[in-house]
Order: sequence, then structure tokens, then C-alpha cells
Amino acid sequence: MIIVMGRSSSEEDLERVVGAVESAGLDVHISEGVQHTIVGCVGDVSHLNREELQVLSGVQRVVRVMHPFKLVSREFQEDDTEIDVDGVTIGGRQVTVMAGPCAVEDRQMLLETAEIVKEGGGEVLRGGAFKPRTSPYSFQGLGEEGLKILREAAERTGLKVVTEVLTPGDLELVAYYADILQIGARNMQNYSLLRAVGRADRPVLLKRGLMSSVEEWLMAAEYIASEGNRDIMLCERGIRTFSKYTRNTLDLSAVPLAQELSHLPVVVDPSHATGRWKLVAPMAKAAVAAGADGLIMEVHPRPAEAKSDGPQSLKPETFLNAMDEIAEIADTVGRGVKGG
Amino acid sequence: MIIVMGRSSSEEDLERVVGAVESAGLDVHISEGVQHTIVGCVGDVSHLNREELQVLSGVQRVVRVMHPFKLVSREFQEDDTEIDVDGVTIGGRQVTVMAGPCAVEDRQMLLETAEIVKEGGGEVLRGGAFKPRTSPYSFQGLGEEGLKILREAAERTGLKVVTEVLTPGDLELVAYYADILQIGARNMQNYSLLRAVGRADRPVLLKRGLMSSVEEWLMAAEYIASEGNRDIMLCERGIRTFSKYTRNTLDLSAVPLAQELSHLPVVVDPSHATGRWKLVAPMAKAAVAAGADGLIMEVHPRPAEAKSDGPQSLKPETFLNAMDEIAEIADTVGRGVKGG
Amino acid sequence: MIIVMGRSSSEEDLERVVGAVESAGLDVHISEGVQHTIVGCVGDVSHLNREELQVLSGVQRVVRVMHPFKLVSREFQEDDTEIDVDGVTIGGRQVTVMAGPCAVEDRQMLLETAEIVKEGGGEVLRGGAFKPRTSPYSFQGLGEEGLKILREAAERTGLKVVTEVLTPGDLELVAYYADILQIGARNMQNYSLLRAVGRADRPVLLKRGLMSSVEEWLMAAEYIASEGNRDIMLCERGIRTFSKYTRNTLDLSAVPLAQELSHLPVVVDPSHATGRWKLVAPMAKAAVAAGADGLIMEVHPRPAEAKSDGPQSLKPETFLNAMDEIAEIADTVGRGVKGG
Amino acid sequence: MIIVMGRSSSEEDLERVVGAVESAGLDVHISEGVQHTIVGCVGDVSHLNREELQVLSGVQRVVRVMHPFKLVSREFQEDDTEIDVDGVTIGGRQVTVMAGPCAVEDRQMLLETAEIVKEGGGEVLRGGAFKPRTSPYSFQGLGEEGLKILREAAERTGLKVVTEVLTPGDLELVAYYADILQIGARNMQNYSLLRAVGRADRPVLLKRGLMSSVEEWLMAAEYIASEGNRDIMLCERGIRTFSKYTRNTLDLSAVPLAQELSHLPVVVDPSHATGRWKLVAPMAKAAVAAGADGLIMEVHPRPAEAKSDGPQSLKPETFLNAMDEIAEIADTVGRGVKGG
Repeated sequence: MIIVMGRSSSEEDLERVVGAVESAGLDVHISEGVQHTIVGCVGDVSHLNREELQVLSGVQRVVRVMHPFKLVSREFQEDDTEIDVDGVTIGGRQVTVMAGPCAVEDRQMLLETAEIVKEGGGEVLRGGAFKPRTSPYSFQGLGEEGLKILREAAERTGLKVVTEVLTPGDLELVAYYADILQIGARNMQNYSLLRAVGRADRPVLLKRGLMSSVEEWLMAAEYIASEGNRDIMLCERGIRTFSKYTRNTLDLSAVPLAQELSHLPVVVDPSHATGRWKLVAPMAKAAVAAGADGLIMEVHPRPAEAKSDGPQSLKPETFLNAMDEIAEIADTVGRGVKGG
Repeated sequence: MIIVMGRSSSEEDLERVVGAVESAGLDVHISEGVQHTIVGCVGDVSHLNREELQVLSGVQRVVRVMHPFKLVSREFQEDDTEIDVDGVTIGGRQVTVMAGPCAVEDRQMLLETAEIVKEGGGEVLRGGAFKPRTSPYSFQGLGEEGLKILREAAERTGLKVVTEVLTPGDLELVAYYADILQIGARNMQNYSLLRAVGRADRPVLLKRGLMSSVEEWLMAAEYIASEGNRDIMLCERGIRTFSKYTRNTLDLSAVPLAQELSHLPVVVDPSHATGRWKLVAPMAKAAVAAGADGLIMEVHPRPAEAKSDGPQSLKPETFLNAMDEIAEIADTVGRGVKGG
Repeated sequence: MIIVMGRSSSEEDLERVVGAVESAGLDVHISEGVQHTIVGCVGDVSHLNREELQVLSGVQRVVRVMHPFKLVSREFQEDDTEIDVDGVTIGGRQVTVMAGPCAVEDRQMLLETAEIVKEGGGEVLRGGAFKPRTSPYSFQGLGEEGLKILREAAERTGLKVVTEVLTPGDLELVAYYADILQIGARNMQNYSLLRAVGRADRPVLLKRGLMSSVEEWLMAAEYIASEGNRDIMLCERGIRTFSKYTRNTLDLSAVPLAQELSHLPVVVDPSHATGRWKLVAPMAKAAVAAGADGLIMEVHPRPAEAKSDGPQSLKPETFLNAMDEIAEIADTVGRGVKGG
Repeated sequence: MIIVMGRSSSEEDLERVVGAVESAGLDVHISEGVQHTIVGCVGDVSHLNREELQVLSGVQRVVRVMHPFKLVSREFQEDDTEIDVDGVTIGGRQVTVMAGPCAVEDRQMLLETAEIVKEGGGEVLRGGAFKPRTSPYSFQGLGEEGLKILREAAERTGLKVVTEVLTPGDLELVAYYADILQIGARNMQNYSLLRAVGRADRPVLLKRGLMSSVEEWLMAAEYIASEGNRDIMLCERGIRTFSKYTRNTLDLSAVPLAQELSHLPVVVDPSHATGRWKLVAPMAKAAVAAGADGLIMEVHPRPAEAKSDGPQSLKPETFLNAMDEIAEIADTVGRGVKGG
């Protein structure tokens, strides 16, 4: 059971509601968002009288949620969440395209890539400054230097920036330069990090873990939401299976499924999912046909020279061609992409 | 190494080629197809002199194939295979839709379903007469009675029939009534059955096993092709993963991947892949966007009454709506469906 | 609900029981075994009155089984099944060791291997005469010639023979030469084959499919049992996972789990499960410590020359050492191996 | 290539070695451990002359390591690592048993549990004070209060304490109370945390991720080792597969495999791997038979009342019985447990 307090509710209203819940033997979880304060009831809700709660002063509505995820569930909020990133909307009618290199390698290549992304109709620039690498001896990213380059490229092109944050200690720094905070697949259940971005003033792109169920993914989003940050995009990026020809197996059925269970927008990453550039365009088109709200793709001016993930990065011309085809599919399903 | 004998080559030509290969210490595998006789060289091909073989009488061409699958590989045949099923083409420009109930339950429901399939633009009627059921105590299908009903429905509507054959002993019977022989996922590595349909005079729809790699799937197709039958459709129907919200995980990247590695057409089954009718239309559209050559879907006049797989079957109106959307995507990617 | 008819029950007794079940609106499945005739009730058993059935003439007992597998469930039979293979018991106190080459390659090597198996305390000789190979161009086994060699080796050493049958058409031939019929992992859901061996007069070793749950495995056993053959050994041989260092992932927890759910003996195959000879002895010991009733292992006089699965075959001396260690573990858990 | 500097090597020796490597165009990674300073060479090692490096002053030895994991590889250190935790050795002849509740719930139950662990021959007390829970609304552990209780129980019984650390920010606190730092499965690729414990003065128990290959697991250990901390225990705790009867699938072949590839001790957690208390003892015995250096198991005085993971916790008497059986297997494989 979730109790939504109205905007104009007072401190006393909240205390009275909390008291009513606690006196029925349950615990409360209070989540203060920009729009609403929400009182979650933790425990055996059969002891609660919904009608009595509904008439308490300041209470906007009382929602019964059957799933273990509450704030992010479709039961809690019927309408799609639309996230406004300083003028770019994710989760609205249009399909939002995010693109860029796996890692920020140097200023020149990033500025070059940003122009290509812009040209193709992308709205968000991706690029890693802090890279989670399997080996401690591999290139770990340029750090703050990389963030500065991303910011510069964004300012020049009008693109927004999405980049990964690896640990709570880096959060303030990353949030200073980035428009969207990315939580990587390996950190999907790093709960300290989820809580930290849940208190940050930036939208979050939450990648699905390599072996995470759709429920666990939504529970990870719930961690973020429960701290107050409701601007969350889910990102399907492939799961790990026995299959060896592709890097991972893109689970596109997770797109309509997550949209059925949750009001959050769903973005698809065909680059990490397949690991092969030839499969990126077909899977991007398939994702849009399946109803994805956004795409995040790897583009590199010269993939052969990339410091990481070269084999899955699109060349500029391949990216531009793919964008044309993606725009056609987006139009067909009534969405469109920017400028498409 | 594969040696393709020309149509007008003689028995002596073949013997000379075989002799040349064997004298280099290799074994030969001869596969007699409708168009060509093919001599496969089994063993260490570095001992063979390609140029010498090429000039032997009757030899059309000598092909080096790096993959373990030979006759079904794109290296062996560059052009897409187009399969003609008595006027219906699979693997050509158009996307072919196959639809029908999981199992043939009775005459009335099947005739009713066939009309709906026809109305939606489907060209092939599916339906199980011999059902592979997990439990020996579940409904096992109507057997020959079911085949007769399928044939009757086909004659009335002009649809073709695809239905599963479970064992070599049933092959003659099934081939008598069906236009396309289906090999189910559980039988993908039932080599006796593969060999048997490889000698049959009917196209084969080969479902991918629940835990089969793309390579194993193509090797299963190779078993069929090596017996002479080259009219094979691959069918992606979901693989088994840890994911529990869907029955299986549809691996759409397998579509462009199989098309890159092989010249065979690829059909997608979104019904078995997801097990939830709400996901069937989104995944069907995604499949076509990804380049699928065909779709096979479950439709039932009254899913709630279905003897098997009701939860994944489309109602008639849902099917007809889905077909409209599928046709739009097919047009967008330059394919179209029949009458669409 | 399952009704066990006593040994001395008459044809009329059976008819009366069937009538009682059918008149309650259920279907019956009759399974005639060596010891008992069993009437399975298929349908909504809440309509049956257990007490009324229990007092009918000829009825020995009426068992309620909650699992979908019935005859093979522990609820149906509390005591462990002990299978007598002409003097060798599987499922009793002792751990039974089966060993031999992957494939029968020639007479000399097999006779040599049989002597080693005998020397190590093995009781059953394994070896494939009909091989299910991924490629149609790989060595497919010696066929009947291989069966004859197996039989000869068995006669010379007193070992029993277990070998795979691939298709119903070969069953009579294989049963003529073999003591135990093996159903391979790829054929675990080849229901025609399961039914066929269910009518055969030979014990069956049923390998778990690469992708099969414990429940599906027991349902496959149920197919065999429902045809009358109750002499079934389950064989865990590794499942397919994302893990790449080993060929498959040995699921040892399936041993106590299957023994909890079923009365059938469980045999473990550490050779196919790992694909690496160095891991065979540790996993064989682990299997026995986990409660396995038997082991099936690959031994080859000269693994480097093996036509298939050389890397997972034990050399004679490694096998003999492993057998000593296995015997010690078997003693520790109160079982022992033959002569150990 | 890895260069091990002798204990008595000087600062100048190190600089000379670094200069030699860098002048060949490679980067260096310096790792200062308690015993040795190690210079890792990152880049194309074919440009390095091993013989020239070997004769530089202060160099003890130069090791070529083929695997991507270096310091933790068996190639780098042939002898097993033995970790001394204040008198308790992990990785030596004896099998070390760690046991305790999933979470520290209150002082009384933990002191009670500690006595049982002690009585059974356990040497390390486990218990979570900071719990990584799938839901933000579930019990998250007692925090520092829980750590204090663990320490008190340890002082009373002489047991050592292993407990999980979730984030770098908690590290100092956890290390103050605990003897061994646990990295949970969900954090196996939380590289910031791995680096942090790599600089801590406490041994680390590194759980394998649900979806992690053996190579990724060793790479995670390499992250820790590369920061200087070489006292690492690997912990196999089950991987995620399609199998549904058990919580995860215990991959026991990973034990001998990790021991072949690495010199680090391997501990097995049969409780989380199976999720069912009935399977814990069989899997614990199997683990020891497979060569495990330690076990970590869940014990709870009253499992039915446990706040988390009750179904997989052993009751006191079941634990004591299991310990007797484990001790017998440990003796059989020449290891033994404490007091066993």
C-alpha cells in the first residue's frame, strides 16, 4: 500500500498518516520527491483500512500495488513517465537516440563524433570517462578530463551528455558535468550507488544486469525512486546466455514487458547487446518496432583504432544510414525521431 | 572443400572426381539434390589441389567453405534460397505469414481459424496433429484425423499446411497431408529424423532448439541438406534462459546472424518465444524489422478454451490488427506481406 | 491419483476400477508392468472418492501424487528402486561404475579398454556404436559391428554393456546386444523413442537434456514408466550455461534433488559434464559424496588417438587411480564399489 | 610479463627496472605487497628482453604469464597461498569451516549461533551486518550494531569474523570489527570496492558473481591483488541458470578449475548455491571431495524465525551432524577439519 500526499499537505498531515500506519503494526518508508511525498507501508497490509487512510487530511490517494516494486509500477502511475532533460524529452512520443564512442579517448575524436551524432538526429551524446574494465591493466578512462571533453562537445552541439558513474565517491563530480547519470550493468545491484543517484538531481539511465530478471531490474529502479529521484530510464542491453556468436543476447521482449509493468521509459542498447556492428542496425530497428522509447548506440569515427569495443562501433556513414532506417520505422509506429 | 557437379555431368565424371579426392586420402560425402550433385570432401583439405579439381570434366565449381556447415553456408551459395511451396514463396521479397492453433482440436475450430488466417493475409496454416507434450498424460494430438482436417482446411482456403513430424515412422503419413514438414525444437538434434526429412520430397521448417547455438542449428540444417533436401527454413522460436516472465527468450539477433552465415530463409515464432499473447504483436513487428523472411504465430478462435498454449494464442481480432501493423513494418523495410 | 492393482487382481477387477474412474468424468491411463498393473487417473481428481476406490476388489492401494510425474515419484514408491542387470545391481548399497570409450572404434581397443574397466572395479562397459554427432560428416559409429564388439568384450570380462539407441528403428538391434539402453541428452524429449524403450525388455539409462529442468527429466522418465518399463536410471551429465571453461556445467545438486523427488537411481557422468579429463576424478568423487548411485566415465587406452571426445577421456592409469579414490569416498559414505 | 623485486631491492633498483620497461614502449603497473614489490608490464611484451631484465639489480625473478590474470595465476606463484587469519589458516592442509546466520538479527541469537559453530568445529563466524537486499523495503541489516555483536561473539568463542562490506565508504568501519572482508556476488565487478579492499589490511573473501565466468572471477581477484592485498579467498556460491528447483546452480567444477589456474584458496557456499537446507550437507560433502579449501554455511538456531534466507539455513543439530560427515570426507581426502 502506498499513500500519496498532496502537494499542499502539511508536516502534521504527514505525521498523522505515519501514525495511522504505524499503529496498525507496519513500518513506513517515506520518499520525498519533487512533486509528492509518498508514504510506503511495509509489512502486512491486510491490517490497514484503505478507506480510513483515504479520508485523512492531506492524502491525495491510496494505491494498492501487488508487485514488489511500488513507485515504479504501472499500478502506482498509469501514465508514461516523460523525462525532461533540459529540453530533450525521453518517454514521450519521439524515440530519443543517444550515441557516441564507448570511451572518451581524446578531445578531437569526441568533438568529431558529436558532430556525427548531431547530424544523424541524435539528441544525447554518450561516452565513458570512468570505464568499468574487466582487467585492472586495461585503459580505465580519462576521468575528469573526459568529463570536461564531453561537456565541451555538448555545449558546441546542443547535445545532452550521458556518462557512467561507478561509485558514490565520484557522483558529485560526474553530476557536475553530465546531464544523465548512467548506472552500468555490472552495478545494477550496487545498492549504495543506486541510493546515491536516488538522491541526485539528475535523471538516471539504469542498465539491466547481465543476468538480472525484469523484476530485479525494476527493484533496482525502485531503490532509486525510493530515495526521491523518479527520473529513471530503463536500458535493456542484452543478457548473458549460452549463445556465443554474439556478445550477449538482446532480450527485446523485455521492452513491452517492462512497459506493461512500469511507467518508466525503456531504452535499448544494440551495441553492447550484440557486440557486432553488422547487427546493430537490424536490432535498433527491431527495438523501435517493439516499442522502445530510445536507443543508445556506439559510434566511432575510426572503429579500428578504438581503445575499447571497436568491433561493435558503427562507422559514421553506417550510423547515418542506420538513422534513416530507424526514422522510417519510428514513423511507421507513430513515433518519429528528432528531425526524422 | 565442396565440388559442385554440373547438371550435364555424367556418372563417369562423378567417379573421376571421387577418385581424385580419395587418392588424396580424404573421404567423400555425395549429396544428390534436384539441381546438382555435390561432392563434399571430408578430411584434411590442405592435401587437395583446387585448381586440378576445377578442370576435371563435369565439375561446375569448387568451393572452399570455412564453417563446419557446408551446403547451407553463404559461402557455398551467395544468393538467398527461395522456397516454392506450390505457389507460395518463402525467402523471397515478401514476408510469409504462417498461423493457426497450437493443436488441431476439432474440425469446426480449425476451419474457422483457417478463414481468419486467410483473411489476415496469412499464406500457410499451422496446427499440430502429433504433439510433443512434456507429460505422457496430456493431450497428444488427433493424429491422422488431425492431418485430414488440416488438409481439408487447406483445400477450402488455398492455404498451405505446415505441421510437425515427430518420428521417422510417421513421416510418410505426415508428408501425404502436409505441404511443409516441421521439426520441433526438442527434435532439432534427432539426427535420424533429420536424415529422414532430408530424403523427403517436402520443404522443412527447422525450429531452433531451446539451448542450441546458431552453429548447432545450421549443422542440423546441414544434416537435412546432406541427404539431398535443400528446401529448409530456419525458425527462431526463443531460447531458454534464466528469465522467468516469458516462456523463453526470443533471440532476434539470430535472424540477421543466420542470414549472414547461411542462404536459408529465417522464420520467427513469437508465440512460443514469449508465451504471452500481449508480447506476440510487438515481437512479430520487431522480427520483421530485423529482417525475418516469415512469421509463424498461434491464433485460436477462443484461446480460453484451447487444449494447449492458450495464454500465447491471439484472438481473431488481435491477429487481424497485428497483421495490419506487421504489413506496415514489412512495407517500410521494402518487403510487404501478401495482399498487404 | 494412481491406483495400484494387486498381482492377483483379475481382468474384471481392472474393468470395474476403470469404470469407476471414467464414471467420475476422468480418463484412465493403464500401465502394465512386470509386477503391477497401474491405473492412472487423468483429469480433475477432486471428483474421485479415494476411500471408495480403495475398497474395490483387486485394488492394492490408491496413491495421491502431487507432482506431474507419477509412477517415478517418491510419493508413489517410497523405497529406492534397485535395478538388477543380470547380477549387477544399480540403486542398491554399492556405487556402480560404468566406463569405456566414447565410441567403439575397433575390436582391439575395446577389448583392451574392457580389461582396464574390469581391473578398476567397473561393472558396466560403455561405448557408442551409434553416435549422435553434431556434424553429418563426422564419424557416426560402427553400427552393428560396434555392438558385436561390445558384446564380445562383455562376454570375455563379465561386464554388462550400456550403449545408446538413437531411433525406434534401431531398438530391436541394440536390445539384442546390449544390457542397458542409453537415451542420450539430445533425445531426452524424443517421445517416440521414450515410448519405444518403455516397451522394451531392457533397463534404460536416461541422460538429462542439456537444457532440461529436473522436472522435465522426471517427466521423460515418466514416459518410459507409463509404457510399463520401470527399470530406469537417471543420468546427470551437465547442463548448458554461460560458462565456457568447461564443456557443460555439472549440476550435482540434481543428484540429491532427484533422489528426494523420485525413487529411481541417479548416475553421474563427469566426463561429458566437464569435457576435461583433469576434472573427471574430482567431480566423480564429489558425485559419490553427494550420494550418486553410479558413475559413467570415459576411459581410452590412448586418448590422443580417440575419434571423439579424447580431451575428456581418462588414461588407464588415471582411471585406476581415480577408482581407488572413488572407492575410498564410497566407503566413507557407507556405500563402497565392487571389490573396493 | 611480471617482474618481482627482491625484499632488499632499493628505490633506485625499482626506478631502473621501470625505466627499462618504459623505454621498450610499455606501461608499468606497480603493486606493493607486504613481501614483494611487483612490476607488471602492460603492453606488447614481445618488445621486452626477459634475460636483460633478469640481471638488473634487485630483480628476484621475471615471470611470463599467459592468462589475463597475472598476480593471482598459478604461473606467477606455483605454491598454494595460505592465508593466516590471526591463527586460523585458510588454504593449508585443513578444510576451514565458516558458519553463522545470513544476517545478524539480535545479540542473543548470534551468541547462541556462535557457540554452535564453535561446537561443530567451525573456525570463522559469518553474519551480515550490512545486507544487500533486492528490495529497498526489506530488512537491511543492523549496521554497526551488528558488527559489534559479531565482534563480541568472536571474542567469547575465539572464532574469527567474516562479514560483507557493501561500499568503499563503509570499509574502515567494517575492517575495524571484522577479520575477513566479504565481497558479495552482486559486487564482484564493483571495481571501486575491489580497489578499496585491495588497499585494506584484511583478507578478502571474494564471492563469484551469479553470471561470472571463472576468468572474470579471477580478474576481480586480480583487481584486489594489483592494489597490494594478496590475501584473497575465492568463494563459489552458485551461478544462475535456467534451473528453477534450486536457487542457483552450484558449479563445483569451478573448484578444481580455479585451483588449476590460480594459487588462491577456494571456499564453497552450499547454502546460497542451493537455497534448500536439505541439499546443504550433500553439497558440502561434495565440495570437500572436489578439493575445496573451505566451506561457508548458514546456521540459525530457529530457521523458521530468520529474517532472511530461513529455508536454506541449517538447524543446530543438522549442522552438527553435517560437520561429522564433512570431517569424514575431509579425512578421506587427506585434509581434516579442526578437531575433526
